[in-house]
Amino acid sequence: MIRSLAFTTQGRLHSKDIEMFLMPTLLTDTNLFLWIDLEKPTPEEAKFVLEELLHFHPLSIKDCVEESPAPKVEEFSPKEEDKFQPYLFMVIHAVDYSRKDGVFATSELNFFLGKNFLVTYHDKPMRSVAQVEERSVKGTTHIARAPDRVAYNLLDGIVDNYKPALEELSLEISELEQMALAHPTKETLNKLLQIKKEVLHLRRIIGPQREVLGRFARGEFKLIRPHLVPYYRNVYDGLFQIYELAQGYTDSLTGILQVYLNMSSNQTGEVVKLLTLITVITTPVVIIGTWYGMNFAHMPETSEAAPQWTYPLVIIVTVLSTAATYLYFKKRKWF
Amino acid sequence: MIRSLAFTTQGRLHSKDIEMFLMPTLLTDTNLFLWIDLEKPTPEEAKFVLEELLHFHPLSIKDCVEESPAPKVEEFSPKEEDKFQPYLFMVIHAVDYSRKDGVFATSELNFFLGKNFLVTYHDKPMRSVAQVEERSVKGTTHIARAPDRVAYNLLDGIVDNYKPALEELSLEISELEQMALAHPTKETLNKLLQIKKEVLHLRRIIGPQREVLGRFARGEFKLIRPHLVPYYRNVYDGLFQIYELAQGYTDSLTGILQVYLNMSSNQTGEVVKLLTLITVITTPVVIIGTWYGMNFAHMPETSEAAPQWTYPLVIIVTVLSTAATYLYFKKRKWF
Amino acid sequence: MIRSLAFTTQGRLHSKDIEMFLMPTLLTDTNLFLWIDLEKPTPEEAKFVLEELLHFHPLSIKDCVEESPAPKVEEFSPKEEDKFQPYLFMVIHAVDYSRKDGVFATSELNFFLGKNFLVTYHDKPMRSVAQVEERSVKGTTHIARAPDRVAYNLLDGIVDNYKPALEELSLEISELEQMALAHPTKETLNKLLQIKKEVLHLRRIIGPQREVLGRFARGEFKLIRPHLVPYYRNVYDGLFQIYELAQGYTDSLTGILQVYLNMSSNQTGEVVKLLTLITVITTPVVIIGTWYGMNFAHMPETSEAAPQWTYPLVIIVTVLSTAATYLYFKKRKWF
Amino acid sequence: MIRSLAFTTQGRLHSKDIEMFLMPTLLTDTNLFLWIDLEKPTPEEAKFVLEELLHFHPLSIKDCVEESPAPKVEEFSPKEEDKFQPYLFMVIHAVDYSRKDGVFATSELNFFLGKNFLVTYHDKPMRSVAQVEERSVKGTTHIARAPDRVAYNLLDGIVDNYKPALEELSLEISELEQMALAHPTKETLNKLLQIKKEVLHLRRIIGPQREVLGRFARGEFKLIRPHLVPYYRNVYDGLFQIYELAQGYTDSLTGILQVYLNMSSNQTGEVVKLLTLITVITTPVVIIGTWYGMNFAHMPETSEAAPQWTYPLVIIVTVLSTAATYLYFKKRKWF
Amino acid sequence: MIRSLAFTTQGRLHSKDIEMFLMPTLLTDTNLFLWIDLEKPTPEEAKFVLEELLHFHPLSIKDCVEESPAPKVEEFSPKEEDKFQPYLFMVIHAVDYSRKDGVFATSELNFFLGKNFLVTYHDKPMRSVAQVEERSVKGTTHIARAPDRVAYNLLDGIVDNYKPALEELSLEISELEQMALAHPTKETLNKLLQIKKEVLHLRRIIGPQREVLGRFARGEFKLIRPHLVPYYRNVYDGLFQIYELAQGYTDSLTGILQVYLNMSSNQTGEVVKLLTLITVITTPVVIIGTWYGMNFAHMPETSEAAPQWTYPLVIIVTVLSTAATYLYFKKRKWF
Repeated sequence: MIRSLAFTTQGRLHSKDIEMFLMPTLLTDTNLFLWIDLEKPTPEEAKFVLEELLHFHPLSIKDCVEESPAPKVEEFSPKEEDKFQPYLFMVIHAVDYSRKDGVFATSELNFFLGKNFLVTYHDKPMRSVAQVEERSVKGTTHIARAPDRVAYNLLDGIVDNYKPALEELSLEISELEQMALAHPTKETLNKLLQIKKEVLHLRRIIGPQREVLGRFARGEFKLIRPHLVPYYRNVYDGLFQIYELAQGYTDSLTGILQVYLNMSSNQTGEVVKLLTLITVITTPVVIIGTWYGMNFAHMPETSEAAPQWTYPLVIIVTVLSTAATYLYFKKRKWF
Repeated sequence: MIRSLAFTTQGRLHSKDIEMFLMPTLLTDTNLFLWIDLEKPTPEEAKFVLEELLHFHPLSIKDCVEESPAPKVEEFSPKEEDKFQPYLFMVIHAVDYSRKDGVFATSELNFFLGKNFLVTYHDKPMRSVAQVEERSVKGTTHIARAPDRVAYNLLDGIVDNYKPALEELSLEISELEQMALAHPTKETLNKLLQIKKEVLHLRRIIGPQREVLGRFARGEFKLIRPHLVPYYRNVYDGLFQIYELAQGYTDSLTGILQVYLNMSSNQTGEVVKLLTLITVITTPVVIIGTWYGMNFAHMPETSEAAPQWTYPLVIIVTVLSTAATYLYFKKRKWF
Repeated sequence: MIRSLAFTTQGRLHSKDIEMFLMPTLLTDTNLFLWIDLEKPTPEEAKFVLEELLHFHPLSIKDCVEESPAPKVEEFSPKEEDKFQPYLFMVIHAVDYSRKDGVFATSELNFFLGKNFLVTYHDKPMRSVAQVEERSVKGTTHIARAPDRVAYNLLDGIVDNYKPALEELSLEISELEQMALAHPTKETLNKLLQIKKEVLHLRRIIGPQREVLGRFARGEFKLIRPHLVPYYRNVYDGLFQIYELAQGYTDSLTGILQVYLNMSSNQTGEVVKLLTLITVITTPVVIIGTWYGMNFAHMPETSEAAPQWTYPLVIIVTVLSTAATYLYFKKRKWF
Repeated sequence: MIRSLAFTTQGRLHSKDIEMFLMPTLLTDTNLFLWIDLEKPTPEEAKFVLEELLHFHPLSIKDCVEESPAPKVEEFSPKEEDKFQPYLFMVIHAVDYSRKDGVFATSELNFFLGKNFLVTYHDKPMRSVAQVEERSVKGTTHIARAPDRVAYNLLDGIVDNYKPALEELSLEISELEQMALAHPTKETLNKLLQIKKEVLHLRRIIGPQREVLGRFARGEFKLIRPHLVPYYRNVYDGLFQIYELAQGYTDSLTGILQVYLNMSSNQTGEVVKLLTLITVITTPVVIIGTWYGMNFAHMPETSEAAPQWTYPLVIIVTVLSTAATYLYFKKRKWF
Repeated sequence: MIRSLAFTTQGRLHSKDIEMFLMPTLLTDTNLFLWIDLEKPTPEEAKFVLEELLHFHPLSIKDCVEESPAPKVEEFSPKEEDKFQPYLFMVIHAVDYSRKDGVFATSELNFFLGKNFLVTYHDKPMRSVAQVEERSVKGTTHIARAPDRVAYNLLDGIVDNYKPALEELSLEISELEQMALAHPTKETLNKLLQIKKEVLHLRRIIGPQREVLGRFARGEFKLIRPHLVPYYRNVYDGLFQIYELAQGYTDSLTGILQVYLNMSSNQTGEVVKLLTLITVITTPVVIIGTWYGMNFAHMPETSEAAPQWTYPLVIIVTVLSTAATYLYFKKRKWF
């Protein structure tokens, strides 16, 4: 699907859903700039915009159409034989609306940013694109004065959209902490390692993104006007904070893992304690019972000739020694 | 709340709690400089000072008003269309008076530092701001000769205020060490991991702060006069020492964790030892008792025809073998 | 075996399997360039091409012929006494078709890249060399216009060929995860550590490769024409992604190891639980049985004079206390 | 206490214990240089030397008088209004003579190094200061030709004095290794973790020291004459070696910890083995004894009517089955 | 012992074992260069060569004569008052012929490399020195054309001599892996940790060596002629590979440690399993035996009045329940 918007350099909407054959003309008008949004375009649409209309370098077209895991930014300046205008090609990853099945889904947004055009290319509908489009059509002049400003707004939206996913993560981590302390089960460990993988994944997504935006923040590109650089630096700072958060999550998870492992080994320790306790407390009964189960004919305590009080005495001795054992362990706080 | 102070460049107090409409006039007087402290200002107050009076860049106003986790410093130089004077915008985190509930609370202090003004913005009352204000009103000339000197005093105060919190942490770590060695319980582990998280948090707070102050210490900013750079370097050194302390705490905590885990697994080991000891020591009695509990009619030791001394002999054998077992384990230092 | 191809600078095939004595002549023709592929050449062949025909520096010949574990690139510019043309010498490692016996086999590809020649040297047949050769003979003009373009195609093929091996690894890691959760055995640990070693090995192979290609991507070499630099950057990005994947594998494997170790210590914990359970549940029977096995003559419960219901009562007490113990542990979810 | 020495630029002692009022005169004599050693000076002495005599920058005086954990070096060049000569201010930590109570005690040495003066400031008597003073008074001309040479000798002495403490550490680590292998007790772990903390402490002391001396070794300071730079590099190399040693100690300690933990878990394993062994070996006796303890009236083996050899047969069966069990475990090397 | 060789700049041997008094003359001959090898020289020999003949800087003489753990290279250029020629001083560590007692022994080789001299100084006989000497006397012209070429050959030899020691290590690591899987004992752990220490030691030896040779490889020194730089880069690459190998060993050892620890904890798990198995399987016999050992007069099953088949029935019940338990655990694959 192609959506196209033409804005005047004062930020007002000039036209919308422009016919393809009009685009070349609009591109030559220095008072206008064009934003073409390709959402899951047909190969013909992609070919028309990227190759025939704007003549982008074949490598950046390839990178745009294929799915590429690493964010990047590249500056293309035309050589003699090239027909394209100087442009920036950027790949950025956005986080999807929700984390289904506990997995971070990212989608790729490709930018081609020129002096008077911005082409965005993505395979799935993206919230930040929709938001910026809506706001710029409504005519808030700050948003759509130039392609680099639109690009800033898109990037700002993408970074903002990371936040709900992060809060969800943070919540899950708190729950995990409770679980590890209360009822550590095999499930807890699985959950923990799965979230850890997620957080590491998040850091690996954001790491190169930071590098890409760092180059904008340092004002490396001529196509970004100097007075917009602080805005890009702001986006960079936002990413930096997400990265720091992720680092904090990693620390928390490492701590929870240690709690879990300790709780789990404590459980075995408690079981062994119980076993020992039972064994020790029943020892007096067992010994005495076994002993007087012997069948010696000449056993003075049990024989017919023995006084009547031997059995009651044995009962008393047994009860007392069991009680002593019980109290000893009670005192040493075994239970 | 707005507090405002005007000082002469000789460091004497010119006026206090200046009416808002006078501020623009005072700002044009080259013999004066203005310190405006915004403590939880109303939106109107903030708007008046930051936008109408000093025309700061919208991005730094946004960063100032919003809570931002990462410390930073940015230099803003006016472009043609901008109405503001060149200024430095800085965000720094201070540690609160006390660590309630064992958690480090930080509060944010925003600075706008210009040639003849200093604006500080914070949401909570801050000790270092109060101290510097008091001292500069009392007229110690060193403190309030220029905005960069006031800023130095504020930063110095912030770094100093970290120290009580650090000493508290250090105390808690010593206590933990004692606990881990004496009575390691689940509580010890929780406490340990919680303090570890705190220390890591502290390092994450201080890390970027160091970078910010490092730029001052290297004299990167023209608004800081060269002969003040060593003072800023001093503040930087202070932060560096805190960072090193935090690193030392981390090492201690890792050691305590190892002690804890070892103590906890030793406890299980001790329990198993006891179980084994009881089992082994009762083995002779149990075997002999069980054996002579057999009912064979033709069992020479127990039959009526057996000599009288068989039972006493069995008693002696049982006592001796139990004693031998006891002494054997005594010698191997099992108890 | 020597394979040689001469191309015109328009990318068309000029001749194939050129006689050795013709090579010097072809090398002087500025409209042609020569690609000589040495696959497990005889020493004479190697000597002819590397020494007599192109007079390469003895050190690069040594590095080419010997097996060298580290990828590298070196630029050789002739000194007065040297007879060779300026050239780049590069060593790159490719991954073989399949991972036999679960071990990554890499093979070395040596490049000598000059203005009008490309010499490739390898000991085993290589897929990417065969592919590029086939495609360039078939005359797709983009592929064989200049030696640096052919070299790019070879490198691109090598990086692409890493992918099947990586997918295989990824599959094995998923299987391992299942195994560690379901039936952790000694085999699982062995497999895990072996795959971990592989992944670390892969990272050690790719690390220096990235550095080598990074130098191409930054356009450090004059022999690579500037408009080809983006292509090399593309290859670099591909390698970077593989490196990131390997990093992700390492994280997964660390997680699986933790699952494994925990499952394995849980198993022992379960066994101890069973032991304790059996001991505890049989305790009432054993105690009662042992007690009434005593032979006291004056034991009111068992004597002839005792009422008939003592034995049934003991049965009931035994059953009830055993059931109570059973239910107690059932309630605490021991089984 | 103030000690002062004046040397001629030929390295001969000019005068000693100079009266305070003479110092300003001597400082103006270009053929002399002055070494003032302040050992735990009274505030008046410190004030006279640091402020009145040499007019040092207030910040470096503050750093000198206060205890500061981080080593550093700063170059002070006078501004118009400043009265001091250009000088280097350096803080270095020396290790005390002996490690009392197993703890590394460090003491701080502050240097002020100018063209014709050296001021050293320390709170405790220091061995290296005493040594250098003695040697320079005795007139070995190499030692006291210029302030930078005296400073080198002091630094060299400080680094040399680290060595005995390191050897002591190395010895303690070897002892620990023996202990961990022979009789791992709770004490061993405590000792181990305490020494580990020490080594980490040592590395944290030396790390910044290296950076400070690295700046001398690179010849960054004009006050150090170029031909003395190799000497400072030598001191730097000495520190580097200590750092490497400390790294090696850390590795050893990590290894010892692993031995300890393994030994300690092995002990529990051995105890469990013993428990199992006893249980298994006594099983035949216990089963047979219990079985024939049953009171069935019609039990052919035990009844009066049974042949005489049933009891001896049971004895033989018991002995044989116990022996078989014993031999089985003997063969599997359980004891 | 002093060995000395003079070569013409064509690489031919001019003279051998030169008298000391002739050396100064030979040093002035620009067509010759001198290689003096000091192997455990007497102090007089060392003094003559290093001080009187070549007037080296006292610091490099000190570093040469003393044993210094860190490899380094320093360039000495004469100042006005110095009498020496510009020279490079280098300390390198070689690995001894064999690893006696499983410990890497390194020996130090000191180089003084000037325009027309090379002085090597070592305390023990060194294989690479002997080899280069032999080959250069035999007149292979490439080897001994200039001091920097001889130095290259020495360094190349040193790096080559690391290989046998590495192969030995690799073999020992494989053996360890087998041991850890088959019969993990305390010895295995000791061996493992000892080899780990060795490998870490090796990396600490090679790390700084790489830095030293890296400076040669980058062509930092004027005394190394540019066309020899690729040769030094080759030596550097060799060291790099050794470093990588050592890194691989570390990874392997970490894996083996994990196998060991797991095997060792598995052994305890197996023992506990056996204990539980024995306890569980004997439970039916013990309970039944104990139960019918009770002496109740009115016990219908055992009394004289009971039918004859009660005892056989109890036997059958016991056998069946024991068999059921046995089969249950057999099915759950406990043995």
